[in-house]
Amino acid sequence: MASRRLAVLQQHLGGLRVQDEDGSELERQATSAAATTLPPPDQMFDFLTRDNKQLRAQIFEFLKFQAALECLSFCDYSLAIKSGVHFTLCGGTIAKLGTEKHHDVLRAMDTLELPGSFGMTELGHGSNVMGIETTAVYDPATQEFILNTPNNEASKFWIGGVAQTARISAIFAQLTVNGKNEGPHVFIVHLRDANGNFMPGVRCADNGPKQGLLGVDNGQIWLNNVRVPRDALLDRYATVDTAGNYRSPIANVQQRFGTMIGGLTTGRMLIAQGAVDACKIGCTIAIRYAADRPQFGDRPILSYLTHQRRLFVGLATTYAFHLAMLQLKQVVVKGGPDAGKQIHIVSSGLKAGATWHRVKILQDCRECCGGMGFLAINRIGPMLNDMNVDTTFEGDNTVLMAQVAKPLLDAAVKAGMTSAPPPKVMEMDLCKTCVGRLLAWREQMLTAGLAADMAAAAAKGGPNAGMAAFDDNLDRVTQLGWAWTDRHTFAAFQAEAAAAPAALQPALNLLALLYGLTRIEAGVECYLSTGALSGDAIKALHAKANALCRELGAGNGRLALALCDGFGIPDHLLQAPIAVGNWRTFEG
Amino acid sequence: MASRRLAVLQQHLGGLRVQDEDGSELERQATSAAATTLPPPDQMFDFLTRDNKQLRAQIFEFLKFQAALECLSFCDYSLAIKSGVHFTLCGGTIAKLGTEKHHDVLRAMDTLELPGSFGMTELGHGSNVMGIETTAVYDPATQEFILNTPNNEASKFWIGGVAQTARISAIFAQLTVNGKNEGPHVFIVHLRDANGNFMPGVRCADNGPKQGLLGVDNGQIWLNNVRVPRDALLDRYATVDTAGNYRSPIANVQQRFGTMIGGLTTGRMLIAQGAVDACKIGCTIAIRYAADRPQFGDRPILSYLTHQRRLFVGLATTYAFHLAMLQLKQVVVKGGPDAGKQIHIVSSGLKAGATWHRVKILQDCRECCGGMGFLAINRIGPMLNDMNVDTTFEGDNTVLMAQVAKPLLDAAVKAGMTSAPPPKVMEMDLCKTCVGRLLAWREQMLTAGLAADMAAAAAKGGPNAGMAAFDDNLDRVTQLGWAWTDRHTFAAFQAEAAAAPAALQPALNLLALLYGLTRIEAGVECYLSTGALSGDAIKALHAKANALCRELGAGNGRLALALCDGFGIPDHLLQAPIAVGNWRTFEG
Repeated sequence: MASRRLAVLQQHLGGLRVQDEDGSELERQATSAAATTLPPPDQMFDFLTRDNKQLRAQIFEFLKFQAALECLSFCDYSLAIKSGVHFTLCGGTIAKLGTEKHHDVLRAMDTLELPGSFGMTELGHGSNVMGIETTAVYDPATQEFILNTPNNEASKFWIGGVAQTARISAIFAQLTVNGKNEGPHVFIVHLRDANGNFMPGVRCADNGPKQGLLGVDNGQIWLNNVRVPRDALLDRYATVDTAGNYRSPIANVQQRFGTMIGGLTTGRMLIAQGAVDACKIGCTIAIRYAADRPQFGDRPILSYLTHQRRLFVGLATTYAFHLAMLQLKQVVVKGGPDAGKQIHIVSSGLKAGATWHRVKILQDCRECCGGMGFLAINRIGPMLNDMNVDTTFEGDNTVLMAQVAKPLLDAAVKAGMTSAPPPKVMEMDLCKTCVGRLLAWREQMLTAGLAADMAAAAAKGGPNAGMAAFDDNLDRVTQLGWAWTDRHTFAAFQAEAAAAPAALQPALNLLALLYGLTRIEAGVECYLSTGALSGDAIKALHAKANALCRELGAGNGRLALALCDGFGIPDHLLQAPIAVGNWRTFEG
Repeated sequence: MASRRLAVLQQHLGGLRVQDEDGSELERQATSAAATTLPPPDQMFDFLTRDNKQLRAQIFEFLKFQAALECLSFCDYSLAIKSGVHFTLCGGTIAKLGTEKHHDVLRAMDTLELPGSFGMTELGHGSNVMGIETTAVYDPATQEFILNTPNNEASKFWIGGVAQTARISAIFAQLTVNGKNEGPHVFIVHLRDANGNFMPGVRCADNGPKQGLLGVDNGQIWLNNVRVPRDALLDRYATVDTAGNYRSPIANVQQRFGTMIGGLTTGRMLIAQGAVDACKIGCTIAIRYAADRPQFGDRPILSYLTHQRRLFVGLATTYAFHLAMLQLKQVVVKGGPDAGKQIHIVSSGLKAGATWHRVKILQDCRECCGGMGFLAINRIGPMLNDMNVDTTFEGDNTVLMAQVAKPLLDAAVKAGMTSAPPPKVMEMDLCKTCVGRLLAWREQMLTAGLAADMAAAAAKGGPNAGMAAFDDNLDRVTQLGWAWTDRHTFAAFQAEAAAAPAALQPALNLLALLYGLTRIEAGVECYLSTGALSGDAIKALHAKANALCRELGAGNGRLALALCDGFGIPDHLLQAPIAVGNWRTFEG
C-alpha cells in the first residue's frame, strides 16, 4: 500500500526522483569543491539516511514514505502537510483504528479517489481532545450512528482539506449507545460526493486566510443529523454488534481513548521532521550566502563571530534533531512492549524541541541574510510564514513539554526522590562524555527539585495539592521538558555519530560537541546556581564553543559548507538564488 | 509643513480621528468594566502620551506627526512604512541636508504631488554606506552632475516606492569634482515624469514578492548618465559653486559624511516605535483572548503560569520601550550640543532592542492564541510577516548593538578601566532601585571585561590589535549592547513611572519591576558567575517575577487587561475578532 502511496506522491514531485526499490537515495549534487579534504557529501548523506539500508527488509516501505514526505517538505510545506493529512492522519487513523472492512476506503485513498481529512479538533477543544462535544448516537432501528454538532464550539475547526477537497473525514465524536456515553470514538464520515456536493446534513466552510500554509484548505465542519452505517465506526478497540450492544476489551473510558490516540503519533513525528527539514534548507541557504557576501571590503560576513554563532549552532542543532528523529523512526518500526509510551514521550519532546529550535534557527537565517532573507524568492521568509503553525498544531509545545516532564516527575515522586542530589562539582574537560553527563545531571536536578515540591505539597494537602504544585510550577516543568529533550537529543547525536564511518566522525564529533555546549549554555543558571560549574568553567565553555565555530568557519566555511552539502538537497529544491546563483547579478 | 503632512495622512486614515489642535488624543474606548478599581484607561493613555501636553508649544507638530505614523502602524505596517519613506526618509533628508532652494520640492511632496523615495542602499552595500559605488561627476560645462550605476552591485536596492510610485529619489552617490572624490553626497533625482514614464537614463524594477510588507513597492534603480542640475545637490554641508569649485566646512570626508547621515535618525526611531506599536496590538489581542478562552473545563488559559510568563512579560517590555521612546523623542525635540551623539546611541539601542523584543513578543502572542494566532483575520500572524524586516532595515541589529557598545568601550579604554570592579555581593531586596543598580552593574562588568581585553591586545600589538580584539569578541560586544539597552530602558521606565499620576504608579511600578527582573534573568550568567548574586537570590527573583505575574493575572487578568486598554487602541483598529468579538460564534 505504501508503495502505491509513493507512486501517487511521485506524480506530484515533478522533476524530483525520490528513491528506487534498490534503495538508492535522492538525486543529489556532486561534491562541493570546497570539501576536498573532507568526506564527500554523498558519504555524509548515506550516513544521514543509512537506516534505509541497515533495516531495509523490515522498514523499507515505512522509511521510504517518510523520505518522500521529506522531499515534499523541501518543495513546499503546504504540499507536505496536505499529503500528511490525507495519508498519515486520515489514512493512518483508518489503518490503525479500523479493521479489514475499512480497507476499501484505504485503497480509494491511495489513488486519491477519496481525499481524506482528520476531524478531531473542535473550535472549543484543541489540547483537550477528551472534551470534544460532537455526538454520535447509535440508532438500533436502522443500525446507524447519528452524528451532530450540538453547538458552534463543537464544530470541527482547522480541518485540513475540508474547505475544498476532502470527500471523507475521520470524525471524532462522543459515542452514545443505549443511552450510555462511551467516550470519544472515530467514524468515517462522507463529506462530499464525487461531484463535490455536500452530503445530507454536512456543511463545511473555509477557515479563511492564514499567516502562511495557504496551500492547505483548512476548514470548519458542522454535522446536522448525519447518518452513517454501523461499519463507519473504526472498531479495532470497540464495536457495536448487530444486536446493538457496545463491546470493548478496555473497560475504562479514558484508558480506551488513550489507547486509540496513543497510536496516532506519526503525525507529530512528521511535524518534527518537517521542522528539521526547514532548518536544513534555511542553514544551507544562509551559510552559502554568508560565504559569498562581503561587507566592509572583501571580508565575507560568514567570518564574523556573531554570524557563526547563529548559523553554525543552527547547523549543529539541525544535525542533532535529524539524527534523533532517525533513532525514533527505528523505534517506531521495531515496536515492542514499551514502545508506545516511549514513542509518545520522545515524539512529544522532539516535536516541541525541533519546532521551537526551528523558530529561532530560521529567524537567525533570515536576519543573517539581511534584506535578501526577506525576499520571497530566497525562501527563508515564506518558510517562516508557512511553518509558524508547527509550534501549536499536533500538540501545543508547552503542553507537550509538560507531557514529557510528567512521567519523569511521577516516577521521581513514586521513588521518593524528594531531595536533589548534592551538586557535584564537575569542572569541564569539554569532552562529549562530560557534556552528556552535565546534560543528564541538569535533568535530574530539575526533576528532583520539582518532585520534592510536589511530594511536599501532597504530604500537606493530598494528591490534588501535588498536582496543584505541578501546575504552580509550569515554568520549571517546561524547563524540565527542555532538559529532557537536550539530554536525549545529545545522546542520540553521540550514539549516531559513533556509528558513522570513521572519515565522518571528526566533523560529527565537532558538531555534536558544539550542540551540547550550547545546550549547557542555555541551561547555564542550573550549573552556576548550584556551584556544579564555576564562572571560569563557563568562560572556558564559551571559548570552546567559539573555537568550534572558528573551525567550522575556517577557509571561508569549508567544513560548514560541506556539512550543508551532506543534507543532499539538490539545488533545484533549494531554489534560492542567493544559495544556488550569483546575487551580484540580481535583477528584480 | 508638518500640519499639511498630517492633513494628507488623515485622508488615508478613513474612520480614524487622529488628534485635534487642542491636543485631545485618539478616539478611544470607554473604560473596561474589569478595571473598575484601577485608574481609567484614558488616564493611563493620557500619561502614555502626556508629553504632547507638557511640551506642546515647542514640539507639538513633531509629536503629532509621530502620533499619526503610530496610528498608521496600528492600521497597516505597509502604510506606515510607505508614509515614513516618503515623509521622513526622503522629505526629512531633503529638509535636513538641503537648503531653502529645495523647499519647493518639499511643498510638492507634502501634497503627494511628488512621491519620494530614499536611494541609499545598494545591492552590494547595506551596512557599509560609505562604500556605495553610485557615481556623481560634476560637469562644469553644463553645471550638471552626471549620475551612473557603474556595475550591478551598485544598483540601488530595496528602495521603497521605486517599483511603482516614486517620482523622485534622494540618491546617495560618490561625488567627484575636478577629478577628486569628495565622498558620498545626496542628490534629488527625478525618476518618473507626471505620467509615470522613466526619465532619460533611469530604469527601475520591482524587487519582487517578500515575506510580508507587500503594500510597499520596493525596487531597484539603475542610472545611466542621468544629468541633474547643480541645484540637485543637497548642499547644507557641501556646495559646488558657479565656478565649479567644491566647498565644505568639514574637510575630512568621513567626518563630513558622518555629519550628513548623523541627522537622519528619525527613520530608525520610527522603526523602533513601529515595533512597540505592534507589541501593543499583539499583547492586547492575546491577553484578551486568553482571558476569554477556556481549555480543560472552565479554566481560562490566561490562568496558566506559562501563559502569564509570556504575555505579561511581553506587556511589561512593551510599556518599557514605549516610555523609553517617549523620552528619546523629547531629546530629539530639545536638541542641544551633545544631542546628536546621544540620539545616535539611544536610537540604535532602542531600535535593535525593540525589534528583537518584538520578534519574541509577537511569536509568544501568536503561540498563546493557538491556531487562532495563525489566522490572518486575528492579525498577529500577518504582523509577524510584515514586520520581520525590522530587525535588519534602518541598520542591522547586530551592527547597531556594536555601535552602542563601541563608545562605551572606547571611553573605558581611554579611562584606563582595564580591570573589572570586584563583584559586589548585592543580595536582592527586589526593589526597583536594587534592580536598576544590578542592571547598571552588569553593563559596567561587561564594559570593563571587554575594555581590558582590548587594552591588553593593543598593548601587545597596537591599535589594530585592539580593534581585532573587539572583532574577536563580537558575541560579548552584542551582550554589552543589550546590557546598555536593558539598563537605559529600565531607567527610562522608572523615571517616567515616577512622573505619572499617583493613581497609576502602583500598576506602573509593578510592570517596571517585572520588566527589570526579567532583564536580570536574561543576563543571569553575569550575576551568578561573579558571585554578585547567589543561587538563592536568583530563586527568589524568579519567585518574585512569578508573583508579579500572578498579580497581573488576578481576577482573570483584570489589571493586565486594564493596562492593555491604557494603550488606547480603539477596537476598530485592533480588528481581531478574538479580541473584539466572540470567538465562540466564529464561522469561517
